[in-house]
Amino acid sequence: MSTVDLHDTIRAVAWEGDRLKLLDQRILPAREKYLTYETAEDIAAAITDMVVRGAPAIGCTAAYGVVLAARAAYLRNRDDWKQLIQADMATLAASRPTAINLFWALQRMQRLIDSMEGEPVAPLLAEAQRIQAEDIAANHAMGELGASLMSGPAAVITHCNTGSLATGGYGTALGVIRTAYSKGLITEVFADETRPWLQGSRLTAWELVKDGIPVRLLADGAAAHRMKQGGVSWAIVGSDRITADGSAANKIGTYSLAVNARYHGVKFMVVAPTSTVDMEIADGREIPIEQRDPNELLSVQGTRFAAEGAGAWNPVFDVTPPELIDAIVTEKGIVLNPTREKMLAMMKNG
Amino acid sequence: MSTVDLHDTIRAVAWEGDRLKLLDQRILPAREKYLTYETAEDIAAAITDMVVRGAPAIGCTAAYGVVLAARAAYLRNRDDWKQLIQADMATLAASRPTAINLFWALQRMQRLIDSMEGEPVAPLLAEAQRIQAEDIAANHAMGELGASLMSGPAAVITHCNTGSLATGGYGTALGVIRTAYSKGLITEVFADETRPWLQGSRLTAWELVKDGIPVRLLADGAAAHRMKQGGVSWAIVGSDRITADGSAANKIGTYSLAVNARYHGVKFMVVAPTSTVDMEIADGREIPIEQRDPNELLSVQGTRFAAEGAGAWNPVFDVTPPELIDAIVTEKGIVLNPTREKMLAMMKNG
Repeated sequence: MSTVDLHDTIRAVAWEGDRLKLLDQRILPAREKYLTYETAEDIAAAITDMVVRGAPAIGCTAAYGVVLAARAAYLRNRDDWKQLIQADMATLAASRPTAINLFWALQRMQRLIDSMEGEPVAPLLAEAQRIQAEDIAANHAMGELGASLMSGPAAVITHCNTGSLATGGYGTALGVIRTAYSKGLITEVFADETRPWLQGSRLTAWELVKDGIPVRLLADGAAAHRMKQGGVSWAIVGSDRITADGSAANKIGTYSLAVNARYHGVKFMVVAPTSTVDMEIADGREIPIEQRDPNELLSVQGTRFAAEGAGAWNPVFDVTPPELIDAIVTEKGIVLNPTREKMLAMMKNG
Repeated sequence: MSTVDLHDTIRAVAWEGDRLKLLDQRILPAREKYLTYETAEDIAAAITDMVVRGAPAIGCTAAYGVVLAARAAYLRNRDDWKQLIQADMATLAASRPTAINLFWALQRMQRLIDSMEGEPVAPLLAEAQRIQAEDIAANHAMGELGASLMSGPAAVITHCNTGSLATGGYGTALGVIRTAYSKGLITEVFADETRPWLQGSRLTAWELVKDGIPVRLLADGAAAHRMKQGGVSWAIVGSDRITADGSAANKIGTYSLAVNARYHGVKFMVVAPTSTVDMEIADGREIPIEQRDPNELLSVQGTRFAAEGAGAWNPVFDVTPPELIDAIVTEKGIVLNPTREKMLAMMKNG
């Protein structure tokens, strides 16, 4: 086991035998429970309900959903299954709106379907597993690239969860943190608790504690005060969709962190595989931002705390413009001070 | 009842007969329950435990605590009560460190004690009630002054709770919001939920709903994204201590809001009575910042959500420097773009 593996023990999305297992992220860290799925419809519901979340993990999960959709359709009608599968494809595509990886994975599976003949399950399963394996490999590559930007031991700050739970495995921003910690470049991780869903408190802290990386949680509003105290070199975050101009949609609160990082001279790194990059959208302002149930904010994990009669504004993503980003890291390379031209050049790599 | 009174129905600190009643702010909004206090020691514990919170409310409460301390000491020994009371004075002074109003109120009560003869309870009670009445009057004056800075109907954003619950009554920042709403200058209030204690969700929303002012809650990290959408004219907050240079300590997250307000061209107003101003501290960096139990962050209202093994960084105040403040409003006047000289001139007013 390499040093890196030592800090990488978790898999949230796993195909087992003839079904998909998902670690139920709604009830972490109190309980570690895997749910099993045998239909695409149930998988779409699991994505909507956030049993699984994180853009790359959603992509991997949707790919396995296509395997299950194909299996059911092929059983019903061997000649017509490519037609029959389309309802399930649409259900999967409608499960969440912001993460582009979902649509990327569905399109990749559809391309294989278009070209295939005969029994579809084995080749589609192999493709879904390839998507997950490639995602993990991309994360390891980004880990090395991201860590190469960092010098000297210092604390870092992160937002939301971008680790094994949010990806095929290892993580994007948290993958960089795993690699950089292994190399002695990180002393401590400050993790925003990340309201309203508390991905930082519940998921990031759980992953880091499990993998032996020191972590302290802080209120989202405390990040500015923390940066002002000094000692934080980088803010490192993931993304749900990066547009052609280098804008990055990510969990609500990321944009606030970026504004504050710039104000305090803390560098800001966005880490995401190219499956997260949407070159068809010119500008971050055009990214569809999901609004979720106000009750997610008015309550904490199902218990109501807010005063009755109060409304809530609950967009769950925001967009950080390229001028606030020091580096975008994908598996294809590093884009410093992103522009349209640099993004295009990076996407053409490899 | 005037239009203003219509939006002002709550009192959290109230002397009744021979004891103090405090609205238990730890269990709002689920239950509206008043607790009664007959000793200074219990009042100090109520301040530490945050039965009552908010700098001016803490000041008023401590003043009533001195009345109860004097009553007990005078019963024990009529000749020596001024000496006997000092242990209770010290206990009250140690109840919380950041809000200067606590020390201000204790010093004001001590000055009266030093000059008095005979039975102390009636004159000390009169003084404590004067402190509360003056605080309410200051809030009304600040409401008018603050509203005079605002033009045209627009949304505003606020942080923490600065209303009747946080003061003798009416509120500081929320007093400005009450007055400005009555004048038609505010369309809607966006209230940060204010982790970790959720003063926004639990207290500010409760006050505003009760007094018929439209309010929507948002995650603390969402304030930047909200400002970017436009329509927000002012961020209006209170303070626990303002120093001679015009720095303002306030609930953690205020500084992040100020950085973001400046970045988005939203004006930033700090509203606090002169009892909050500490001219003996030259610089905001010297303000003692209270660190509270990490469990306040690792849990939400007593239920643990964070992963076991994770630490927390839980300073409950931060300091906003004068260069990020467009206006400080006290009952003595408005200080635009605060400097040491302007603060001194304002304090010499009246």
